[in-house]
Amino acid sequence: MPGGAIEAYPLVREIFEAVAAKVDDEPCVSWLGPGAAGHYVKMVHNGIEYGLMQLIAESYHVMKHGLGLDNRRLQETYRQWSRGALSGFLMEITAEIFGRQDEHTGLDLVDEILDAARQKGTGMWTTQQALALQVPTPNIDLAVMMRDLSARREERQRAAELLRTSLPTFQGDIKEAVNTLAGALNAAFILTYAQGMALLREASVTSGYGLRLATVARIWRGGCIIRAALLDDLREVYLSAPELDNPLLAPSLASRLLQQQNQLRRTVVLAAQLGIPTAGLMGALAYFDSYRSSRLPTNLIQAQRDYFGAHTYERVDSPGTFHTEWQRS
Amino acid sequence: MPGGAIEAYPLVREIFEAVAAKVDDEPCVSWLGPGAAGHYVKMVHNGIEYGLMQLIAESYHVMKHGLGLDNRRLQETYRQWSRGALSGFLMEITAEIFGRQDEHTGLDLVDEILDAARQKGTGMWTTQQALALQVPTPNIDLAVMMRDLSARREERQRAAELLRTSLPTFQGDIKEAVNTLAGALNAAFILTYAQGMALLREASVTSGYGLRLATVARIWRGGCIIRAALLDDLREVYLSAPELDNPLLAPSLASRLLQQQNQLRRTVVLAAQLGIPTAGLMGALAYFDSYRSSRLPTNLIQAQRDYFGAHTYERVDSPGTFHTEWQRS
Repeated sequence: MPGGAIEAYPLVREIFEAVAAKVDDEPCVSWLGPGAAGHYVKMVHNGIEYGLMQLIAESYHVMKHGLGLDNRRLQETYRQWSRGALSGFLMEITAEIFGRQDEHTGLDLVDEILDAARQKGTGMWTTQQALALQVPTPNIDLAVMMRDLSARREERQRAAELLRTSLPTFQGDIKEAVNTLAGALNAAFILTYAQGMALLREASVTSGYGLRLATVARIWRGGCIIRAALLDDLREVYLSAPELDNPLLAPSLASRLLQQQNQLRRTVVLAAQLGIPTAGLMGALAYFDSYRSSRLPTNLIQAQRDYFGAHTYERVDSPGTFHTEWQRS
Repeated sequence: MPGGAIEAYPLVREIFEAVAAKVDDEPCVSWLGPGAAGHYVKMVHNGIEYGLMQLIAESYHVMKHGLGLDNRRLQETYRQWSRGALSGFLMEITAEIFGRQDEHTGLDLVDEILDAARQKGTGMWTTQQALALQVPTPNIDLAVMMRDLSARREERQRAAELLRTSLPTFQGDIKEAVNTLAGALNAAFILTYAQGMALLREASVTSGYGLRLATVARIWRGGCIIRAALLDDLREVYLSAPELDNPLLAPSLASRLLQQQNQLRRTVVLAAQLGIPTAGLMGALAYFDSYRSSRLPTNLIQAQRDYFGAHTYERVDSPGTFHTEWQRS
């Protein structure tokens, strides 16, 4: 709406609400804020979408090449996941994809599709925005990176020959490993949504969008690619704390992550040992462990910067900026 | 030089070479190419610098909080590392930093420095360029991300309270873990330089810089922050294969990585179990395991994109683009 709230145009609002998808009788559409607010929210939606899709792809890789599951077991697993805590549109269509046969060859269609991802740019824009606003969004960044890496298919074929190696094969209980992976995926999903919401919060403050993040979570629950059960929880978080910097600071989500973190750790450990690439799961774990670190090793980075470039540093015991003549010592 | 090679200005060249740092009697300065070629190379130099600094900071975190080493042992370790395969300027100054006392308090200065990183933007520019040219540079991207995350210090203090948990403490042999970490760091360093060189190669082709990467490796050996023993090896790689897409495709570097990969895996496993954030080490491992994957799970991402947005996909068995009416099944 040019220059004002949709409230000034009741008929437009009525039409939008009539045609929109609805969840619990609430239309999944809303005026979000002035200027580019609506476009910005849609961009971040897509960034989160990239992050979730990368994580699901990694779960596929772990189950197929790590645990040796065939497409039938994969379909069953994703169907089961699409009914529980992991439920959402992307999980549903993943289950359907594994059940689809190619009309021409009769083979499972998913196996006939080339592993080189394309993109329209919205994931990259989200990462660029996160960089500009200095908001950490590793799961979105790494998802974009992995699409770029997957597209270098010919290079990968050459590297696969040169960097061939023998790694241990999986020896444990498959059912347990799949359950562990489900918890890992759930934790990584929460962390990915959190990164996107934190970016929206920062952009809202910086650009004066005045976003109500509870409304964003509400309208994402229907008609959107990232619609998922988790958005109900995010909505609750922002209804009680509309100005939270990051949803991980909400006790409800924090306690869920504390329950699932060991499953995330165990899945990362398994993937590292088996040689299955899991940039997203690892990025989620690194984000989690960094965000909850009251002390990071960045003091060393600040010391190095001051050493070689006199970039100064701050101190833990007094305000101001300081410089040391390191080489005199 | 405006519009031409430095060869047209012999006196300027003589002055540059006279004042430049020298390694093995060769001046660490050269005309690199037309247009912004020189600035571009310097930008990527700084991107690699961000990546290396993040990795060193993670090694500090693992040794201090994971293995319980004090600053004296850290100083010894970094001094030792600065003499072997890991040798380089950043390793040398890191050893010196751990030996420096604060003049006012008499305490180790590194412990008095605030763990909130600043930046001047060159790391971010490198990531932005990598995004634009679709070259995967996860170690540079994650280093920028971690500086941004470290700067959110007040949020981290709150998260540390909410996300406090008890994880196992280290039980193994400390000396062995430190040696394993050295190998991990070496592998991650190689992977970080490789990402930067791959970006330079792509930019050189795209922007017509005509970069000779052997020359880039040569001049980075002296007077630069990322100068390190490894640059001699990179120079050799590009002397024999000037147009290599990625230095990991050189048998010499590939075989080194194959020797060190298990140390990288074991360090990532240890950090995941102990809860020490290692975005860079994990990003390096994910890059390595992705790059050497002849088959990535990106076929699923392409299927999902075609399912929800009719974005089409390619096939493994025939050229062209294809679309499936997924919902009819």
